[in-house]
Amino acid sequence: MPDLQDLTRKLNTNNGSKIVLLVADGLGGLPLTPDGLTELETARTPNLDALAKRGTLGLSTPVLPGITPGSGPGHLGLFGYDPLEYQIGRGVLEALGIDFELGPNDVAIRGNFCTTDANGLITDRRAGRIATEEGERVVAKLAKAIKIPGIEVFVQHVKEYRLVIVLRAEGLGGDVEDTDPQKTGVAPLEPTARSAASQRTAELLKEFIRQARDILMDEPKANLLTLRGIDKKPPIPTFEEMYGMKPGAIAVYPMYRGLARLVSMNVLDAGQTLSDQMSRLEQSWNDFDFFFVHFKYTDSTGEDGNFPEKVRRIEELDAAIPRITALKPDVLIVTGDHSTPSKMKSHSWHPVPVLLAAEERCRPDLCDKFGERECLRGGLGQFPAKYLMGFALAHAGRLDKFGA
Amino acid sequence: MPDLQDLTRKLNTNNGSKIVLLVADGLGGLPLTPDGLTELETARTPNLDALAKRGTLGLSTPVLPGITPGSGPGHLGLFGYDPLEYQIGRGVLEALGIDFELGPNDVAIRGNFCTTDANGLITDRRAGRIATEEGERVVAKLAKAIKIPGIEVFVQHVKEYRLVIVLRAEGLGGDVEDTDPQKTGVAPLEPTARSAASQRTAELLKEFIRQARDILMDEPKANLLTLRGIDKKPPIPTFEEMYGMKPGAIAVYPMYRGLARLVSMNVLDAGQTLSDQMSRLEQSWNDFDFFFVHFKYTDSTGEDGNFPEKVRRIEELDAAIPRITALKPDVLIVTGDHSTPSKMKSHSWHPVPVLLAAEERCRPDLCDKFGERECLRGGLGQFPAKYLMGFALAHAGRLDKFGA
Repeated sequence: MPDLQDLTRKLNTNNGSKIVLLVADGLGGLPLTPDGLTELETARTPNLDALAKRGTLGLSTPVLPGITPGSGPGHLGLFGYDPLEYQIGRGVLEALGIDFELGPNDVAIRGNFCTTDANGLITDRRAGRIATEEGERVVAKLAKAIKIPGIEVFVQHVKEYRLVIVLRAEGLGGDVEDTDPQKTGVAPLEPTARSAASQRTAELLKEFIRQARDILMDEPKANLLTLRGIDKKPPIPTFEEMYGMKPGAIAVYPMYRGLARLVSMNVLDAGQTLSDQMSRLEQSWNDFDFFFVHFKYTDSTGEDGNFPEKVRRIEELDAAIPRITALKPDVLIVTGDHSTPSKMKSHSWHPVPVLLAAEERCRPDLCDKFGERECLRGGLGQFPAKYLMGFALAHAGRLDKFGA
Repeated sequence: MPDLQDLTRKLNTNNGSKIVLLVADGLGGLPLTPDGLTELETARTPNLDALAKRGTLGLSTPVLPGITPGSGPGHLGLFGYDPLEYQIGRGVLEALGIDFELGPNDVAIRGNFCTTDANGLITDRRAGRIATEEGERVVAKLAKAIKIPGIEVFVQHVKEYRLVIVLRAEGLGGDVEDTDPQKTGVAPLEPTARSAASQRTAELLKEFIRQARDILMDEPKANLLTLRGIDKKPPIPTFEEMYGMKPGAIAVYPMYRGLARLVSMNVLDAGQTLSDQMSRLEQSWNDFDFFFVHFKYTDSTGEDGNFPEKVRRIEELDAAIPRITALKPDVLIVTGDHSTPSKMKSHSWHPVPVLLAAEERCRPDLCDKFGERECLRGGLGQFPAKYLMGFALAHAGRLDKFGA
């Protein structure tokens, strides 16, 4: 049965209109007490409220009811890709998270340094949680010395004991078991292919581990490593192919630039601050017709459990809205990739507030301001996040009629 | 995975109840200004409002969020057939639109007269948009002279330069490319099969074109034709088989009679006016247990961008309601197949207001009148149009329990 993307691929039409998707990461929240207000309801947001009055609201479900998404599924849904159809391996996400440009011949792997004893048995699965500086030093040493004939190998540091390894060669499969035994007192597992197509990858990883053992043998803590989330970037149709729009991504954090790159968005220089991002949006306005703008701090303050700071960050976002509306986008969407209630200090499954304001074609609903409860009365209803792009394109006048 | 129709097919039970589905084509609308009312909200509809008070409301999505349906997908959804599963080709719809009774061995084709020069190159793709009278004359000439041994050929005029061709023979495939090159200065394309099963159809169409060239050679304008939307009626289970109800269709316009015929409804003589339709409903009340009544003018006034006239047409429909309720249907549904906001002068993707009034079993909701915003608070919620039949049958007491 055709899904929405099959239709948008056929029906999209370029009328020159522009769409801005402003993602406040982890936007949805919870009140601290049952009779209280959420972070979004607490925040003073005159600009968002004005948009809510003339636009239309709703709530999106990132994956399925009750399912808490990571950043990957959360963003894929917003971009219109079913997060259950396009599952992104941990190694791939980790590589995207350090701005590594994965190609179709790359196998990405998350590595964890560990400590082994004289018999090769693991004594610490995280190499004593070595500091980031030490991790960087050991990664540099490893990256310099590893040489596997016939393929390219990239070794890059992430943080503390974590690193990313990428094997690049034609025809490598990505279907290899983790080597982390998940306990101490045993040796790391051998890389084992789960399919014939990944046999060579497993052999290359064995060679990688063999060399790493020699290179790291003098290290007091990080004298070996385990491999996890071995995977390739899945074949994923481009955003432009799906929607006929030229997309530009303006995200400060590498993970979100990586997620944009996954669907072949053009990743623009976002600077460091929201104001930098707004300047980039203004400067690039004529170069693209779809903009994904990512704001991280509504999520990180939620993860920190800092309710007042999350409120303040929402107000910071609200203050930036006039710079967007001044550009007169045909459609402006403000939403999140998931909820991150400060009360829970984590991502959650709660539906995500959605605000869609369009110059034309918005059917008014019953809403006067932007907030979770108000969104319950919104005209978009509650809908799977993967359908957001349908609403966006329709309100921008970018979809032809289906059937006669 | 079983869908609703798999369940209704198994669970339906005949308790003698009656359902009326009154479709006001293009019912949903938009306000002309953001703070205004829609056409339906503006109209004085005391009868519909009384039904809304005792019934239950909702909003239906014809295909998928953001997708604007044509009349075909719009009605299939209302009849409970997934419009993505049952896609109806242009030629089939065109044949339905002139009341042609398509059978399972028929390949339907939309033809466009065109003008070609001495070298056979197209100079006008629409034959100078010849008048309907001239089109009729040329079609009659063509219909009379075409003879292809072994098959039946029907040639019927639609309007101006448009006609319908139907090839009837066992085993013909419907998978042949359009011959319209979409530009002038070139010859029409050869009919080309997209599958082995359609090879013979392509050969027959080549012969058709060869004869047509001779028959039309003296015509000043319509001296050839191009073929589009070549297709067969898809195999589609009957309405009665799905729901265990004997359906009667009361529609003035041929397209809607054709759509009813597509699911094997009994097409009744609807006369010309809404009052004629109501008389037919009264006269046929004992002969059927499901009635599809189609009212066209809420769509055509919307397409014309005539807001006050659409309001007036909604009021005309409201005035007819007492003649329906006097018959005491167990379930009366008033809805549209899609929205046609006069502001947009076209079909749109906006959800469609649904009113369901049942003698028994309606759970009251928060609604006092029939209108788009009121429907947002309705008990049926927002739901895919293909599920409407589930609500209809349930409220009519026509579905047994699923599972023990």
